[in-house]
Amino acid sequence: MKVLMLSSDYFEDAELLVPYYRLKEEGIPVEIASDKSGTIIGKHGYEVTVDGRLSEITPEDYDALLLPGGKAPAALRAESSALAIVKIFMQHRRPVAAICHGPQILITAGVLRDRRATCYRAVADEMRLAGAHYEDREVVVDGNLVTSRQPADLPAFMREFMKLLKNKVSR
Amino acid sequence: MKVLMLSSDYFEDAELLVPYYRLKEEGIPVEIASDKSGTIIGKHGYEVTVDGRLSEITPEDYDALLLPGGKAPAALRAESSALAIVKIFMQHRRPVAAICHGPQILITAGVLRDRRATCYRAVADEMRLAGAHYEDREVVVDGNLVTSRQPADLPAFMREFMKLLKNKVSR
Repeated sequence: MKVLMLSSDYFEDAELLVPYYRLKEEGIPVEIASDKSGTIIGKHGYEVTVDGRLSEITPEDYDALLLPGGKAPAALRAESSALAIVKIFMQHRRPVAAICHGPQILITAGVLRDRRATCYRAVADEMRLAGAHYEDREVVVDGNLVTSRQPADLPAFMREFMKLLKNKVSR
Repeated sequence: MKVLMLSSDYFEDAELLVPYYRLKEEGIPVEIASDKSGTIIGKHGYEVTVDGRLSEITPEDYDALLLPGGKAPAALRAESSALAIVKIFMQHRRPVAAICHGPQILITAGVLRDRRATCYRAVADEMRLAGAHYEDREVVVDGNLVTSRQPADLPAFMREFMKLLKNKVSR
């Protein structure tokens, strides 16, 4: 079991750090891939080390994907390598969790048609335009997909993501 | 089961938010008491709502205590009401967890004599002077007491604290 996170500069610090530490608490290895190498810095100034560039990632090496929010998703949705990674996880129905602005990457990847999902309020319109059934709830679980709206939803978000990992729908 | 956190302005954001959300994920109510009312702000700018002032707290209403770090413990160790709360939890051997600068409150409360513990490196000398057996490890568990050194230790810190809550040594 290994989890991949995609992020970049100006990530929402709690939305990256809370899942990162939670997975490590459970003994699950987590790696962070980004459009840049070295370290990335959050909106609140936390720095985290990047494990690899997006183009170096082999999605088949990971069992689940997590997309934190902040301003990072706006940069990542412009990276074809990020979109390709997301599509593979969704096609293989491996657990995918996205919070706040994280679902923007799913929207651009075109993987939300007819899926139930949520996101940060300001992202709701484009989520609907992408064909998703948007719901204003702290967490929405649709098969392999877990989505939440904002940092305050992190408890529900992680509760449902951990459940998916434990009952692994795929493999 | 209910957990009390003591903190104040300039808390270490991850050391407060990660345990706060982790406990809520588990469905465990958490309340934050402070020397001030309203909201407190972290070193990285996160704001959290205070549930009550230290002087309004009835320690007997809570099953466990958690002390995040940052600059908050330096303020709280000067508050007799904070020291009184800590002493009650330690006397009753209820789970007490402290990370980074959080153990400074335990030091001033005089509850570390002959206990094994850890803390932020810069606090180690005064921890030893307080009669504790300082260990430079990611987490030290001594009976009801769980201590860690820094944010990167949060996975081990929460793993051990959750274990204590589940096996509840007291009550």
